[in-house]
Amino acid sequence: MSAPVISASNPVFPFHLVRADLERVEASILEQARAFDPGVEGYVSYVCKTSGKRIRPALAVLSGGATGGTHEGHTRLSVILELVHIASLVHDDIMDGADIRRAQPTAVAKWGSSLSVLLGDSLFAYALELATEFDDTHVCRTIARASRDVCTGEILQTQRRFDFNLSVTDYLKMIEMKTAALFAAASELGARLNHQPESVQVALRGYGLKLGTAYQIYDDCLDIVGDEKTVGKTLRTDLARGKLTLPILYLLEGATEAQKQKLNRMLLKGEPMDTTILAGIADYEGAVERAVKFAQNMLLEARADLGCLGASPHKQALEDIVGYLHNLLDQCRAIR
Amino acid sequence: MSAPVISASNPVFPFHLVRADLERVEASILEQARAFDPGVEGYVSYVCKTSGKRIRPALAVLSGGATGGTHEGHTRLSVILELVHIASLVHDDIMDGADIRRAQPTAVAKWGSSLSVLLGDSLFAYALELATEFDDTHVCRTIARASRDVCTGEILQTQRRFDFNLSVTDYLKMIEMKTAALFAAASELGARLNHQPESVQVALRGYGLKLGTAYQIYDDCLDIVGDEKTVGKTLRTDLARGKLTLPILYLLEGATEAQKQKLNRMLLKGEPMDTTILAGIADYEGAVERAVKFAQNMLLEARADLGCLGASPHKQALEDIVGYLHNLLDQCRAIR
Repeated sequence: MSAPVISASNPVFPFHLVRADLERVEASILEQARAFDPGVEGYVSYVCKTSGKRIRPALAVLSGGATGGTHEGHTRLSVILELVHIASLVHDDIMDGADIRRAQPTAVAKWGSSLSVLLGDSLFAYALELATEFDDTHVCRTIARASRDVCTGEILQTQRRFDFNLSVTDYLKMIEMKTAALFAAASELGARLNHQPESVQVALRGYGLKLGTAYQIYDDCLDIVGDEKTVGKTLRTDLARGKLTLPILYLLEGATEAQKQKLNRMLLKGEPMDTTILAGIADYEGAVERAVKFAQNMLLEARADLGCLGASPHKQALEDIVGYLHNLLDQCRAIR
Repeated sequence: MSAPVISASNPVFPFHLVRADLERVEASILEQARAFDPGVEGYVSYVCKTSGKRIRPALAVLSGGATGGTHEGHTRLSVILELVHIASLVHDDIMDGADIRRAQPTAVAKWGSSLSVLLGDSLFAYALELATEFDDTHVCRTIARASRDVCTGEILQTQRRFDFNLSVTDYLKMIEMKTAALFAAASELGARLNHQPESVQVALRGYGLKLGTAYQIYDDCLDIVGDEKTVGKTLRTDLARGKLTLPILYLLEGATEAQKQKLNRMLLKGEPMDTTILAGIADYEGAVERAVKFAQNMLLEARADLGCLGASPHKQALEDIVGYLHNLLDQCRAIR
């Protein structure tokens, strides 16, 4: 399959509407580096330039645009959420021992893990410091809560590697925390900054949560059926690290005892050949198909959450994202 | 020397006045673990029980007691500052590869660095989430800022290891961020939560900043002249890790070119015998004495900052801490 990675800089992705907003966000993110001690500034600006696809900012400004228009608060919210995301990527790369991210050396590859631990911490602390500039403590609290969810989701995932008792419910809870929490904060708070009624904030939170969940399932499926050359990153890494994602959980559900033992052996060995075979089986048995369907249903629900919004180009763009991800998921169905 | 480590649980230390407050803080810290996901709770409660000496909580409640009395806000402030401190210890232990802290295995020794990175992150995010419960965003911002300072101070320290061009000014800035920032937040905000005038808050911030700086210099001197059996932790580790502390900076200042080269060689080799000899030379040349004097002068200034407070047993206790640390520093003077 030839799935382009979702990114705010991807011209296909329906973000043209908020290009000016995103440029302001980008400028502000790079400007934040200057708020750091001169000894730290270089590290901060490097990771800000080389990490993060700005999806969370895009959601925040689209949500703002769809509920009355964006203002300075949306830029700040976007910057904060992206900094939290970048901090989590810096720490993820330490844990995964990743050398390359978006074709650039990671912080851990360049400066080692000690400095990267501290760099992630600083970014994180700075993001939450910026959050306290909102007079509305609910905004600040929602951001802090989402940040904690990201960490908790990661801990749970680390803990449950190679755990064949992981249920689909546990998995969904994990990815909701790890990935969808920041999406949900972006869309909810984008509306809250425009003083929207509680019901609109709740609906947009629901939209972000479902979109983020579907996005993570797409990413998980891509790890199984994707083509490394097109996707531009190493694949089958979830399997090699024992991360049981939705397609694998479905595969396990449908397996006989003897098959389960075979899968178990392949997962535990985790050699490139084993993971490639495992991915092939998951695809062949229809487990990827089932995961794709689950995510697509979730996207339909996400779209329904937008029902509370009046018609606007920004609402349309929020719907287009759903449609775009739906198509990408369709492509996961096709055998490689 | 037989210096007891400063700790809120040390019966010699003048914290009896706030015992009830500190017990409430302790109960609340352990209770926080329950706010985490069940899969994470066990890790959180372990590090909360085995890390941190509760000095920052003691300062926060004493500052509250000296400015009108403590209330629920002081408990929350204390819990938050201690959680930030514990988070930083969890990450410090990863970087230092430390196996033991306060006679217990560290998180990194028990569960590895991946989980410990995430555990520190979660504690940190949770602490800042708790901070958003204060309606006063200045409180929240001061906590976030102090947390960032802790990380920045650590980064600078990591960066400047083995850097013979480190100036005393740079060193003082580093320890002010790394250690004194949370002390300053504790004493400043303890007064702010009692709606004290700006001048009192600023004075108490100054007190905390100077006390924290003197405390770090004491800790640095102890690393050089302390006796491992009495202190109860591995010493000469700063030297082995290339951390240039105040006594070493003073030693370098007074050294001839030839002596500098000798010191340089010993520091770079960093073998136990080298670091022991280096410590002996620093003591012999009066560099420890000079650092002790510097810290003691700083303590006199810290005591002067308390001038704005009316007489009270809590003010007396804040003065007693200064006196207590002054005495501990005196003991660093005595040749081992």
